[in-house]
Amino acid sequence: MTDVLTPSAKPAHDDGAAVDVEVLGRALLGRWAEVRLQARALAGMPELHKVEGLGHVEHRKRVFGQMGILVEQNGVHRAFPERLGGENDHGGNVAGFEELVIADPSLQIKGGVQWGLFGSAVLHLGTAAHQDKWLPGIMSLETPGCFAMTEIGHGSDVASIATTATYDPATEEFTINTPFRAAWKEFIGNAAVDGLAAVVFAQLVTRGVNHGVHAFYVELRDPATKEFLPGVGGIDDNIKGGLNGIDNGRLHFSNVRIPRTNLLNRYGDVAVDGTYSSPIASPGRRFFTMLGTLVQGRVSLDGAAVAAAKVGLTIAVKYATERRQFNAASDTEEVVLLDYQRHQRRLLPRLATTYAAAFAHEQLLVKFDDVFSGAHDTDEDRQDLETLAAALKSLSTWHALDTLQECREACGGAGFMVENRFTSLRADLDVYATFEGDNTVLLQLVAKRLLADYSKEFRNLDFGVLARFVVGQAADLTLNKTGLRQVAQFVADSGSAQKSAKALKDEGTQHDMLADRVQTMVAAVAASLKEAAKLPKERGAEIFNEHQNELIEAARAHAELLQWEAFTEALHTIDDAGTRKVLTRLRDLFGLTLMEKHLDWYLMNGRISMQRARALSPYVNRVLAKLRPHALELVDAFGYGPEHLRATIASGIERERQDEARDYFRTLRASKDAPVDEKVLIHKAKAAARR
Amino acid sequence: MTDVLTPSAKPAHDDGAAVDVEVLGRALLGRWAEVRLQARALAGMPELHKVEGLGHVEHRKRVFGQMGILVEQNGVHRAFPERLGGENDHGGNVAGFEELVIADPSLQIKGGVQWGLFGSAVLHLGTAAHQDKWLPGIMSLETPGCFAMTEIGHGSDVASIATTATYDPATEEFTINTPFRAAWKEFIGNAAVDGLAAVVFAQLVTRGVNHGVHAFYVELRDPATKEFLPGVGGIDDNIKGGLNGIDNGRLHFSNVRIPRTNLLNRYGDVAVDGTYSSPIASPGRRFFTMLGTLVQGRVSLDGAAVAAAKVGLTIAVKYATERRQFNAASDTEEVVLLDYQRHQRRLLPRLATTYAAAFAHEQLLVKFDDVFSGAHDTDEDRQDLETLAAALKSLSTWHALDTLQECREACGGAGFMVENRFTSLRADLDVYATFEGDNTVLLQLVAKRLLADYSKEFRNLDFGVLARFVVGQAADLTLNKTGLRQVAQFVADSGSAQKSAKALKDEGTQHDMLADRVQTMVAAVAASLKEAAKLPKERGAEIFNEHQNELIEAARAHAELLQWEAFTEALHTIDDAGTRKVLTRLRDLFGLTLMEKHLDWYLMNGRISMQRARALSPYVNRVLAKLRPHALELVDAFGYGPEHLRATIASGIERERQDEARDYFRTLRASKDAPVDEKVLIHKAKAAARR
Repeated sequence: MTDVLTPSAKPAHDDGAAVDVEVLGRALLGRWAEVRLQARALAGMPELHKVEGLGHVEHRKRVFGQMGILVEQNGVHRAFPERLGGENDHGGNVAGFEELVIADPSLQIKGGVQWGLFGSAVLHLGTAAHQDKWLPGIMSLETPGCFAMTEIGHGSDVASIATTATYDPATEEFTINTPFRAAWKEFIGNAAVDGLAAVVFAQLVTRGVNHGVHAFYVELRDPATKEFLPGVGGIDDNIKGGLNGIDNGRLHFSNVRIPRTNLLNRYGDVAVDGTYSSPIASPGRRFFTMLGTLVQGRVSLDGAAVAAAKVGLTIAVKYATERRQFNAASDTEEVVLLDYQRHQRRLLPRLATTYAAAFAHEQLLVKFDDVFSGAHDTDEDRQDLETLAAALKSLSTWHALDTLQECREACGGAGFMVENRFTSLRADLDVYATFEGDNTVLLQLVAKRLLADYSKEFRNLDFGVLARFVVGQAADLTLNKTGLRQVAQFVADSGSAQKSAKALKDEGTQHDMLADRVQTMVAAVAASLKEAAKLPKERGAEIFNEHQNELIEAARAHAELLQWEAFTEALHTIDDAGTRKVLTRLRDLFGLTLMEKHLDWYLMNGRISMQRARALSPYVNRVLAKLRPHALELVDAFGYGPEHLRATIASGIERERQDEARDYFRTLRASKDAPVDEKVLIHKAKAAARR
Repeated sequence: MTDVLTPSAKPAHDDGAAVDVEVLGRALLGRWAEVRLQARALAGMPELHKVEGLGHVEHRKRVFGQMGILVEQNGVHRAFPERLGGENDHGGNVAGFEELVIADPSLQIKGGVQWGLFGSAVLHLGTAAHQDKWLPGIMSLETPGCFAMTEIGHGSDVASIATTATYDPATEEFTINTPFRAAWKEFIGNAAVDGLAAVVFAQLVTRGVNHGVHAFYVELRDPATKEFLPGVGGIDDNIKGGLNGIDNGRLHFSNVRIPRTNLLNRYGDVAVDGTYSSPIASPGRRFFTMLGTLVQGRVSLDGAAVAAAKVGLTIAVKYATERRQFNAASDTEEVVLLDYQRHQRRLLPRLATTYAAAFAHEQLLVKFDDVFSGAHDTDEDRQDLETLAAALKSLSTWHALDTLQECREACGGAGFMVENRFTSLRADLDVYATFEGDNTVLLQLVAKRLLADYSKEFRNLDFGVLARFVVGQAADLTLNKTGLRQVAQFVADSGSAQKSAKALKDEGTQHDMLADRVQTMVAAVAASLKEAAKLPKERGAEIFNEHQNELIEAARAHAELLQWEAFTEALHTIDDAGTRKVLTRLRDLFGLTLMEKHLDWYLMNGRISMQRARALSPYVNRVLAKLRPHALELVDAFGYGPEHLRATIASGIERERQDEARDYFRTLRASKDAPVDEKVLIHKAKAAARR
């Protein structure tokens, strides 16, 4: 067949922009390319795929069986010590896990619970004896287990959990207790059915002193009967909005006694006589160090969210380049969806954001590996890692949900059919926005770090510099207030509208505008909060609360800047000129749509003139039209095959049906049987009457 | 127990703001209050409730059974003629249907398919003989049926469907044909299992002329065996992203012969000899008249979306007034979620939008009833109704999805549990955004109407006025370009920041700003498109496409204005001063957050000064804090009881658990067994060392 391309769909190779899918695909695969390709081969195996419509009981059984396949295929032990059969490869381990989301998010998360949380807690919070004793069973799945941290009463605020582990020197045991219903462990994966043991987080009490949250290895069920052991109880969480292949549940403990040595004692120990000791003197720092080992969950969710967005966009873009609807310019041929400006607006900026998130994730994974391999493992490295993971996980998980939904709507009713993946992936990924750290809470952690950096800078300044700083800041505020800065830029902009919008294409300008926004927002919040610290606690908290929204928005701005920087760094590594040209446009689209999104801020803070602001949106539309011919290659570079996409509408069936219809009408028109349109008759009759 | 309220949660009765839940509830119930209350009583019946986790086969059976209960309870016949046992009450009928969404959205939609689409097509497109013959079976559910309009190849573009109904005068029959796969009817409710008959939309061909899309009554299955009749075939659509209580499927027809009299011939008929006749000469107008009778689907979805948003917000707000997390100001008592500014930001503007959408829906329903009862049924009334339904359905269905998702996230992990409703409602309502008119397409219909109105105005002006108009417009553009208007307002604003933000509280100012935006946007697009009409078709289509995004945004602005106006009209009908005060604040919140959302537009078009713009967001935060004490009453006024909410976290269980925990700690503190916190010991030791 001959494909009729509307003007905007014509390949724009003339300007040298052309994607080398292989080159770009390699850049996206990143440092752990081989692991990713292995994991994708696994994720392509039919026996690991989600079967839609299974009841949650059947789905759980299927996923548990799939876990065994992962063990057999040696796909999940990369992070464990070499002496136990692992590879001590932390970055590769997470890269491999992320790709499992494509098979079934329940499998990714159930595997994450078993090896990434339960196993990692033993690995990172325990000492060698613990590892040798428990990791083999955990690795082989002989001991399915839980990570029992969250309680009904306390999710994000882990320090306030109410489960206690009280040491009894008489028997050299800890007693684990959940003293009331709010202290029951909740949403715990593997708790409802499969878990034989758990790492339980509890307040460690010995000799009448509470030393804060520690982790304990607790057996839950009799391996033979699968019945709860005495003192242990639980409830099935039953059906969830998604991830129904995982048996989440509640756990409660009534005076469950465990040996003293079941305390995972790397960061805090209790001697036989009940004496507490820790290598970290500060209880606060000790707590954050223990929790810090769990950052890999966030890293993994960030990567999985990016992978899901890639799959969704691949399906939606493929369909949008085949599906036709309404005939605007021609009487016989309808327009391909992706040629509509609005459709480009819906999909292409999200494609740009997915690239940004992908490259940012790769940086996060490298940072994670640096810390966990010990290559760069200072306190500051760990703090950077925490902040980066919190910032990127928040943005990417929200982005995945937004993208999957937009893709689903952009495919109309077909998008709602479960066979086309969007609704299923979206339902499963929904909880990524609030687990392993609620996104809203995570962004506040990022904001606190931004403020800490800001005030450190402050502390290091002497009085004279401080004075200058404050004056400088005041002058800046004055400028904004009077709009002088805006007027100044306005004058500089005085060319044509197009020229003034094109200036935003400059990489340095984009960076400066995004970075300036972060700095200004942080400085503004810091100024507002400075006095809060001096006031009584209650009033201080009030002032803090009055700026909570600003704080979160500053953190988001920071995270967006990090994504932009990662995208920009990545595109500079691309040698192929044509690919770099397209990727630069895609990065520009990312930067420009960020500015469009925050245009109110740029305007009211005098960072952009009204003239330039008005030219921005039409300019973005032109960039969209230039990217449109490359859309298919840009999703092909994600590297997912039909065994990963598994969506009917991405199989070419739409084009086949159109060809069939086109052939039918062509034959009909050539025959004598074709009916005449009533409208045509009326038109002819009117014409005849005029004659 | 004594409830410790943080300052911002203290009732602000001192300023006279107080909600009378009864008064406000009545205002929300609107004109069809009694029908709504009856329908809510139905929706509260356990046998009509969705059972979560049913497989789609079981779910379909359950919903089919529930349909019978609706018939028994006389809940679904209000729109049908009195002579057949109905009440000829169109507004009341839709009001009753909408509330069924609270029982199970599948039931609402399956009922909508049977009585609102299949039945309505016979009622509105057929004549008295058709009604007498088929409506009794449709009403009693003896004849479950389909509304077979959409095809795989054509969803929104109904005029292009490819199914044909060709008249054969020899046998006085039509032959129904789906000539290729793209012409198969798709996503058809009742098609996979239950449908015995269908109203099939097809191109009517007689005497070699195609008279466009008409509706035909076609029998599908043998009532005894439930097998497809000869020539009819189909496929089960199987599992969808939601609404799995409905048996959607595909239908195809191979030379299926039906009597001539099965043409629903109100707007077009074929005589025995094949002569076509119609009371509407223009094929275009005839098509839109036939499709126009189907507007009630959109009206009903608008109302159901509002109801779902109400339920979601009621659950989330109840939980947010009980759930506590983190202790900012006190050592013993944590903060209630809704006292956090960000949580207010997440829930309260959506609450305000829900009120706006509810009052706007009531206006739509009245308009719908006026047209369908014949009270006000001119061509212009029908066009107004179409435009209003398209505008409001788009906004409210998107709003419901956004609100349910935000509520789910705002409740953390608990929000993800299916027992708390959000994920289930959201999955079911997902498709509301694209069925009965894809929202993106509907907004373009609205935009076309806005442009038509705009150019009509143009046409009616004589040359002199036209010239003035153009000059006026040019002057306006110049003002924007030079920023003079902004400077002028800036000068007028020169008071304190607070004063300048407060000015936006003025009702007239809000209206002018929202209305001015619509007018300006429409005028701008109209100016861009004026030349498009004069150009060759292809280039004209290109220009149109280059402004598609602007067009859609103009339509959205118009719809937002309609919502704002409806909210404002409704609050003026409230006599109770305290309630009106709170409702005015809520309306202000709606208006102000609209301005905040479009602040970039107001700034770059010189409609707001930088100073005022910067004051807007802090001002919105203050309005949020003032509304916070009334949040619970504002959701209570929606009038949904536990039998409608059916969410564990809205049952008071969270508060019970907190009371239990509080009692435990109180008892522990009073005893000698309370452990001392390590942090406290360290603090004391440091203090001792200093002494």
